[in-house]
Amino acid sequence: MEKLKQRILSDGRCFPGGILKVDSFLNHQMDPNLMKSIAVEFAKQFGESSVNKILTVEASGIAPAIMLGFLLDLPVVFAKKKKPSTMEGMLQAEVFSFTKQRSYNICISSEYLTSTDKVVFIDDFLAYGNASRGIISLCEQAGAEIVGMGFIIEKAFQGGGEMLRKEGYNVHSLAIVESLEDCIIKLRD
Amino acid sequence: MEKLKQRILSDGRCFPGGILKVDSFLNHQMDPNLMKSIAVEFAKQFGESSVNKILTVEASGIAPAIMLGFLLDLPVVFAKKKKPSTMEGMLQAEVFSFTKQRSYNICISSEYLTSTDKVVFIDDFLAYGNASRGIISLCEQAGAEIVGMGFIIEKAFQGGGEMLRKEGYNVHSLAIVESLEDCIIKLRD
Repeated sequence: MEKLKQRILSDGRCFPGGILKVDSFLNHQMDPNLMKSIAVEFAKQFGESSVNKILTVEASGIAPAIMLGFLLDLPVVFAKKKKPSTMEGMLQAEVFSFTKQRSYNICISSEYLTSTDKVVFIDDFLAYGNASRGIISLCEQAGAEIVGMGFIIEKAFQGGGEMLRKEGYNVHSLAIVESLEDCIIKLRD
Repeated sequence: MEKLKQRILSDGRCFPGGILKVDSFLNHQMDPNLMKSIAVEFAKQFGESSVNKILTVEASGIAPAIMLGFLLDLPVVFAKKKKPSTMEGMLQAEVFSFTKQRSYNICISSEYLTSTDKVVFIDDFLAYGNASRGIISLCEQAGAEIVGMGFIIEKAFQGGGEMLRKEGYNVHSLAIVESLEDCIIKLRD
């Protein structure tokens, strides 16, 4: 997605340890028009499939997911990182965050993820694939099928995309970062 | 907003302690069409003002905020509940959550909230107004002006709305819950 790539190159910033900061337009301050264009790309990719629900994780996945849900007229469920006091019948999985160097739990009420669901998982970043592993676990627990996985930015050098594709998942990333070596953002053509 | 009120009455659920659970359509599973209609109402209310930015708090405020940002073509900034490792020049405020009975910090990078900003704050619930107090503090620290505050559901019996209106804030709530006594949802006409 050319518009996204240009934005990453112009406004993205590198930090030591393979961190790409895009918080001026994607995950702190958000550009709603870019977010809509991102959702259009996901809609083209996943719209013809049998998907009946969009799945994401709070917080940065919510904006692209709700835009996609709106375009495809599908409900959107976001996994929570804290168990709400009123949640019953909860599905839960542990996720290790590389950026934050700690584990956290994600959970979804079993009311909103069931064996009749064919979901597309949307997230802002695909790095090591740890959040995706958590979502795969939640879907396995629910008996739900993952029809596709869409990421705004994939960091190829962290291997999550390769792992998921080898396992047969339909992974679609809108921009793929080959390397952040010497803090130069190198995108795949 | 009639469509929202009907949805609250049909799908909302009460829990002891003044908790209204709307997670089948608003803050766990989300109905994107309802979310768009909600954003349209906010756009009508705040669209003519001098607002240049939409402000919200992760996670449940993000969906209505990005929809509103899209309709009004304005950037959306969401306050984070955990300080990112890469955030410099951070504005910070403490918020007490009644539902969760604990305090947490919200923060916004000073890059994305400044003295030139005229913001509309959007959130899913207005209860005691504690999240709003946190946002007011962040805006005071930044020298930003709060042009309006829009809430999907206000719980009038918890007093946050009265407090904010008395202080002169332009508060607009799309559905106002008068009472949840005996677990009966009583909405204001």
